[in-house]
Amino acid sequence: MSNIPKIVILGAGYGGVLTALRLQKELNYNEADVTLVNKHDYHYITTHLHMPAAGTDNPENARVSISKLIDEFKIDFVKSTVVQIRPQDKKVILEDGTLSYDYLVIGVGGEPETFGIPGMLEHAMNIRSINSVRLIREHIEYQFARFKREPHRTDYLTFVVGGAGFTGIEFVGELSDRIPELCKQFDVDPSIVRLYNIEAAPTALPGFDPELVEYAMNVLSKKGVTFKIGTAIKECTADGVIVGEGEEIRSQTVIWTGGIRGNRLIEEAGFETMRGRVKVDEHLRAPGHENIYIVGDNSLIINPEGRPYPPTAQIAMQQGVLCAHNLVASIRNQPLKGFEFKNKGTVASLGKGEAIGIAFGKKYKGRFAAWLKKAIDLRYLFIIGGIPLVFRKGKFL
Amino acid sequence: MSNIPKIVILGAGYGGVLTALRLQKELNYNEADVTLVNKHDYHYITTHLHMPAAGTDNPENARVSISKLIDEFKIDFVKSTVVQIRPQDKKVILEDGTLSYDYLVIGVGGEPETFGIPGMLEHAMNIRSINSVRLIREHIEYQFARFKREPHRTDYLTFVVGGAGFTGIEFVGELSDRIPELCKQFDVDPSIVRLYNIEAAPTALPGFDPELVEYAMNVLSKKGVTFKIGTAIKECTADGVIVGEGEEIRSQTVIWTGGIRGNRLIEEAGFETMRGRVKVDEHLRAPGHENIYIVGDNSLIINPEGRPYPPTAQIAMQQGVLCAHNLVASIRNQPLKGFEFKNKGTVASLGKGEAIGIAFGKKYKGRFAAWLKKAIDLRYLFIIGGIPLVFRKGKFL
Repeated sequence: MSNIPKIVILGAGYGGVLTALRLQKELNYNEADVTLVNKHDYHYITTHLHMPAAGTDNPENARVSISKLIDEFKIDFVKSTVVQIRPQDKKVILEDGTLSYDYLVIGVGGEPETFGIPGMLEHAMNIRSINSVRLIREHIEYQFARFKREPHRTDYLTFVVGGAGFTGIEFVGELSDRIPELCKQFDVDPSIVRLYNIEAAPTALPGFDPELVEYAMNVLSKKGVTFKIGTAIKECTADGVIVGEGEEIRSQTVIWTGGIRGNRLIEEAGFETMRGRVKVDEHLRAPGHENIYIVGDNSLIINPEGRPYPPTAQIAMQQGVLCAHNLVASIRNQPLKGFEFKNKGTVASLGKGEAIGIAFGKKYKGRFAAWLKKAIDLRYLFIIGGIPLVFRKGKFL
Repeated sequence: MSNIPKIVILGAGYGGVLTALRLQKELNYNEADVTLVNKHDYHYITTHLHMPAAGTDNPENARVSISKLIDEFKIDFVKSTVVQIRPQDKKVILEDGTLSYDYLVIGVGGEPETFGIPGMLEHAMNIRSINSVRLIREHIEYQFARFKREPHRTDYLTFVVGGAGFTGIEFVGELSDRIPELCKQFDVDPSIVRLYNIEAAPTALPGFDPELVEYAMNVLSKKGVTFKIGTAIKECTADGVIVGEGEEIRSQTVIWTGGIRGNRLIEEAGFETMRGRVKVDEHLRAPGHENIYIVGDNSLIINPEGRPYPPTAQIAMQQGVLCAHNLVASIRNQPLKGFEFKNKGTVASLGKGEAIGIAFGKKYKGRFAAWLKKAIDLRYLFIIGGIPLVFRKGKFL
């Protein structure tokens, strides 16, 4: 039995990976035992998933093997699924074992928030993981093949994207690029295909700069996207969606990007939550648990305007860095630091060669914004994997 | 109004295309009006469809644009679907029009023969056209994607091929090559995948050389195919098939290759049929109809041993050549020739680099047989499209 503290990190998303990478760098030899637990043996680049979902890129380019990221001499890796978190016992129950911890980092990621829309959980697909985007891609291609055998079924070629936030907008941008390719591949008249983007809020990309939102909607409308903004989806069925005042859009493909809530594991563990997320203290710890940090989609942080920060890769990465710092400080009995989000800007892709964004206090659109998006993706690869990863995956971005 | 005879060819399969190509060559200027009618604006190479169905080749390599085959100064092409043949009126009703004829060539192709197996028509897919093999390919890929989201559903990864004739054997050969690729692409343990080939007759490839059949079954078994020979499919359901004495094989993918019968258009036109096929006279004409020729899957010819020749590309091509000759002879009031099938041999592919065959009175197996198969395919491309087509499509074979 070693006496050194045991740190367990649950989840190898943006928050978990950054925590692990920084611990690996900052901890001295034998200062702590670090174990990273993840469902898959790879990390996926969530901000890139809209491309393999639409089929404009290979899913391989949206994931990185964990063994390529962490140094397994310094950090243990366990490929397993978390079944239960037991703060009272300082234990985590895995699908195939149990882990004890002194410090826990919860970075297990969120779940789709369907706001209770009937049928959404059962009938819609989500852009959430490598496996989920493979399903979306294959599902879409399959609908083209089915249509060729049953040409009266135009619902096979009607695609509904629920939610016009960043994921929804980036996905319809890619899908509107892919549809003409699929039409060519399957000899389909492009005028038969319908692509809807439906958003209940009064605007697409709520909270984003209105001028850029207008630009984005113009670009996407020209590419064939039909927007229904300020229109709620009332129900999702096996045959499509019911929107607004009862209008039915018949579709075999509904992709829900409308929201993220906390993971059910968090509530089940007994933490106090809001929409499944825990309002962490300034050091990113769960209230009442000095040894439990929560990063990413499951942590709730209120911004200076009094609203929660949206769950993004950017904030999760910054949380991971601070979380690692505070863990090391705790072990060394040094003072902890408080979290302060530094907004480095946001860029949303609208498909090939088109994007909108705000960075360095300026607005960008078109080709330069698209280049900026690539630069941000490359920067991320550099942060997590250094130059080799940039060369291996970067050429595909 | 011209006084020259009007020849209408229905269907641009092997029989119809060869008839058209030979008429184009043999007819003098203004000797006859020839119109070719086909559902698609392309001819497909049926003997190559097992590859795009499994996904080991692109469907584009199994089709040729009709405008690349026929000289549209000599032959009119109408892209339409035949709705009804009216011998009494010398008319053909198309989906979008009507054609009159003096001579008719029926080469519309057959339909799957399901021998009355309940559910087979509704639930199984067939290797019959570009659109049908696109569906099979996308369907199979989709099952892998679905499995990753519902890993308890092993029926998603159970593939059932009904019929171990040429099409069935060639298809399982390709699919057993493709499965390891799909497993890699979707991170699936190959031991989960099941590929069944089920045949009611007491042997695979009934009527073929037993030594070669045994060789084929060994090759395919080693590639992971589970044969159930002498086992009838009793029923096909939405959940799989019931075989033999009530054993259920749960599968979301059933491909039926068990047989071909005549097209319903033939019976509906009032011809006397056996399994939907017309026993043509020695000149390939429908009995009682001096001006109607039937080639390909819808014609029935009895071989010297008293059994019907199986419907193959080879016999359809030879029929097309003779049909064109007899049409020209009729117009010129010259004597007609009788049909005599010349068996040039048969080669069945078993996937990459493996095949079995009989040609020039000898048996072949392994790499040489696979090369022979390619040579036959190239020869066909040469016959229908000359050297340019061999270069355009041949490199993919």
